[in-house]
Amino acid sequence: MEVEAKEKKFTLTARAVLLDAQGRCLLVRRSAANKRMVGQWEWPGGKVDPGEAPDVAVRRELSEETGLEVALIGFVGATSFEISDIGLTAIVLTFDAAVSGGTFSLSHEHDAAEWVPLAELSKYLLIEQFRGFMLDYASKKLNPLN
Amino acid sequence: MEVEAKEKKFTLTARAVLLDAQGRCLLVRRSAANKRMVGQWEWPGGKVDPGEAPDVAVRRELSEETGLEVALIGFVGATSFEISDIGLTAIVLTFDAAVSGGTFSLSHEHDAAEWVPLAELSKYLLIEQFRGFMLDYASKKLNPLN
Repeated sequence: MEVEAKEKKFTLTARAVLLDAQGRCLLVRRSAANKRMVGQWEWPGGKVDPGEAPDVAVRRELSEETGLEVALIGFVGATSFEISDIGLTAIVLTFDAAVSGGTFSLSHEHDAAEWVPLAELSKYLLIEQFRGFMLDYASKKLNPLN
Repeated sequence: MEVEAKEKKFTLTARAVLLDAQGRCLLVRRSAANKRMVGQWEWPGGKVDPGEAPDVAVRRELSEETGLEVALIGFVGATSFEISDIGLTAIVLTFDAAVSGGTFSLSHEHDAAEWVPLAELSKYLLIEQFRGFMLDYASKKLNPLN
């Protein structure tokens, strides 16, 4: 019973769609401190540390990246993409979240932040491998009956 | 900044679609040893232990439940459902996998196993909260251009 397809290795990332009372989501822009995708906008979040649960990771990352404490109120879904130069498949889990405390401040990883109406998400230079997932989310939220 | 929506707690589960050379997937039937969903068919897998990576968990669970060593060859996606009696949201990650070794044997958790053509998946009593995800998978595999 030999395997023909190449076995893959995975990394796990967790992000949050932080929605405000007006239904806008928080986008942050990747600064020059990043190795990849500088200048592209994303939902805040980051790698799940070894031994860390994904929901714990996303609350930690949001605190580090935005200064905000958040409550997770749902699971949105997952997407994946290949990071071909390091031979990994990145799995990205996305949670719905709301601000529960803290004071907003950006870390060195981002150089801009905006609260963006979901209908305007498509105007932004979003992370390419994640753009489809983000726009699907916006479309379903804006047209829940479709 | 108070949160109106109730904060949720999550558990993480990982499953594998084990496909053979004829494109059939392995279904196992939950035995009376389970608290829930007895008699329903599922893709093998189980809870990710604290501190365990999901890809490690799915290989461990497959070994425990089927005796088979498996190689993970892709990430399918995730779905979630509420386990209302214990107040948790279960997140289920699904991987594509292939057998790489071992000898098939069922654990006490299952009392039957079948290799099922994807086109016949809908005939089985699948776990209700997971049925849509499983049939979507089959549909996309059988009609990749749709």
